[in-house]
Amino acid sequence: MQKSVLRADADRIIKESIEKVLPDYAVKQVLGDREFGTGRVLLIAVGKAAWQMAHAASEILGDKIAEGLVVTKYDHVKGDIPSVQMIEAGHPVFDENSVRGAQTALDMVRDLSPEDTVLFLLSGGGSALFEMPLIPQEELADITGRLLRSGADIVEINTIRKRLSAVKGGKFALSCAPAKICNIILSDIVGDPLDMIASGPTCLDQSTSAQALAIIEKYEIPVSERARRCLEQETPRELPNVETYVNGSVRYLCQAAAESSRQLGYEPVILTTSLGCIAREAGSFLAAIARENQDTDRSLAFIAGGETVVQVTGKGKGGRNQELALAAAAGIAGLQDTAVFSIGSDGTDGPTDAAGGYVDGETAEMLKKQGVQIQEVLKQNDAYPALQACDGLIITGATGTNVNDVAVLLIKR
Amino acid sequence: MQKSVLRADADRIIKESIEKVLPDYAVKQVLGDREFGTGRVLLIAVGKAAWQMAHAASEILGDKIAEGLVVTKYDHVKGDIPSVQMIEAGHPVFDENSVRGAQTALDMVRDLSPEDTVLFLLSGGGSALFEMPLIPQEELADITGRLLRSGADIVEINTIRKRLSAVKGGKFALSCAPAKICNIILSDIVGDPLDMIASGPTCLDQSTSAQALAIIEKYEIPVSERARRCLEQETPRELPNVETYVNGSVRYLCQAAAESSRQLGYEPVILTTSLGCIAREAGSFLAAIARENQDTDRSLAFIAGGETVVQVTGKGKGGRNQELALAAAAGIAGLQDTAVFSIGSDGTDGPTDAAGGYVDGETAEMLKKQGVQIQEVLKQNDAYPALQACDGLIITGATGTNVNDVAVLLIKR
Repeated sequence: MQKSVLRADADRIIKESIEKVLPDYAVKQVLGDREFGTGRVLLIAVGKAAWQMAHAASEILGDKIAEGLVVTKYDHVKGDIPSVQMIEAGHPVFDENSVRGAQTALDMVRDLSPEDTVLFLLSGGGSALFEMPLIPQEELADITGRLLRSGADIVEINTIRKRLSAVKGGKFALSCAPAKICNIILSDIVGDPLDMIASGPTCLDQSTSAQALAIIEKYEIPVSERARRCLEQETPRELPNVETYVNGSVRYLCQAAAESSRQLGYEPVILTTSLGCIAREAGSFLAAIARENQDTDRSLAFIAGGETVVQVTGKGKGGRNQELALAAAAGIAGLQDTAVFSIGSDGTDGPTDAAGGYVDGETAEMLKKQGVQIQEVLKQNDAYPALQACDGLIITGATGTNVNDVAVLLIKR
Repeated sequence: MQKSVLRADADRIIKESIEKVLPDYAVKQVLGDREFGTGRVLLIAVGKAAWQMAHAASEILGDKIAEGLVVTKYDHVKGDIPSVQMIEAGHPVFDENSVRGAQTALDMVRDLSPEDTVLFLLSGGGSALFEMPLIPQEELADITGRLLRSGADIVEINTIRKRLSAVKGGKFALSCAPAKICNIILSDIVGDPLDMIASGPTCLDQSTSAQALAIIEKYEIPVSERARRCLEQETPRELPNVETYVNGSVRYLCQAAAESSRQLGYEPVILTTSLGCIAREAGSFLAAIARENQDTDRSLAFIAGGETVVQVTGKGKGGRNQELALAAAAGIAGLQDTAVFSIGSDGTDGPTDAAGGYVDGETAEMLKKQGVQIQEVLKQNDAYPALQACDGLIITGATGTNVNDVAVLLIKR
């Protein structure tokens, strides 16, 4: 079956958008023509994309890197990097190698001078991969478990955990002083809250000790005397000498999609980079925007980035991006030269091998002819086979990055 | 408590938007400087807004109206109109007065000449208020009931009902021939499908006899010989001499909101006039757009019209517009000079005395201080008391029109 012009446009936008949020691109953007002065440069990369980020930095800086460390997930090291030590550790639950990673980093940054720079390359997953508990591991696991079971939210849990760790909540940055820190961050959290991404080892914490103690009281969590003393400590209130570049995030993903759309002749409109509603409802909303803009004489690309949620009502196979696209298919049924696609930037949407889904004005009719009822499919959370049946799956393979999702509505004129 | 500038802007936009979709306004727009030639002008007004529309027409045309008829809901006649007969009838289920209304209209339009004009003023509710069944009432009720219980959708049910009626599906227009028909329609259905509004007595039907028979077969509905013969008949395939003006609809409501916003210094963007997703998810989507546009140096008004749906998860008091606004409150928490409001143009949102809700960047904090948890309130479908607690209810009283809802996001700079 021949690929439609719209599908070809979609595929090109997808390819170009993901390229610009790859770890390599993020690192090269910041380091391209940066001067580090006369001091030593230490590279510490933490997170699921640590190896790629370190590799990119090494290609640019070469032997300017005096010493380096990569702490990443098991099986994520792809080869040697000159002067860089590799540690693979536990994710999503930290293990003894996470502690070894943090300890090795702390040892590396001891006795630095104000002329030295720590190049800290951070990506998602760092919370588990880089850890040094201040209380026995059993108690930490117990407190975390109780908080989870009590319905505490992620902000509350992190407020506690930052204080029970020697490296989270800006404390690792403090250990690097008086050296300068250059943070390059690939953000996997919508809105880029710096103290949340990998629990912010080198970023200012926004929470307070008073809040931490109030959370323990609210959920009636029993804590040891030692843990209580940790919770009473404030995290660093200022971090001089830290520069931070969030250089891969859903915002970059959306801007890249906009730029790519523009080059294909569409006028791009970034609606949002912090979408968080139910996937199929976002698809319905985008379709409503599509119907409104049919009389346009210019080609338009509406872009919505973020991370929608799947409302689980069935047991089928799919993911949030596939559901968004399929729901949009019903709403744009019959519209000329109109398409909606949505992808996860990591290339994996839900527990499937697809990055997301593509639909256009003809999709609903194609499915109807095959006896597929879109509303029923959505109810079963079974978008994958339906999209498969109309050539609507987007397959990219694992991309090596993770900066949330982007959905695009194309209207071609 | 002093009203904020944003709330004052919102109230003015609401007032001006509703004014422009009132029945009077719609009628005056079309009839303002219209010439009817030498023939007779007959006025027939059907629907919940029939009296207002007839009254407005009478004020413009005066004694040019030779004869007239209003068929509306019980208690909806507000006084006499010269030369116009009043019939009040059943809604939402038709009754003998609905039949009397249709019969009186059919009698009026008999023996007209090509020079004559039937001014047909149609609003929501006409399906029940104006009816002349071609089969015994009991069988009609039985068929409709079986279709409903079988899960037939409204399009399918109307396909059947148009054929079992002497006035629906364009048949009343046929009875007016050879006279001209001037339709003025106040649309209560998103997208203004002319053959669906009040089952389209004077509008071309899009469905076919073959479809009708297929529906009966699909749901295995037993029908009498007489009913089957009706279903085998095509509705009129062309209606010459009919002019139609949809002059009050959610599109007008949105355009009025845009115009009013512009006069207050906002740059308006109509996102859609056919929103149909879950109310609280639409609020979340609008809030995501709000967050994206905080760096603007121009005041912006994003407008989304349509009719969202409430996902019932609790037993509280509220309506779709109130839920949309309250959900948005969580998403715009802390944003400067940013507000979201949503109203039903009829002034009645859900089973409440409010037209909708208003929230701004301070609402979430106000509610938090009172111990109100927005997500919990939404889960209980209990937006009304929460909005009441933060001066967020919009009360207009019954407006006399019904052209769906409009939600507006204001960002003031």
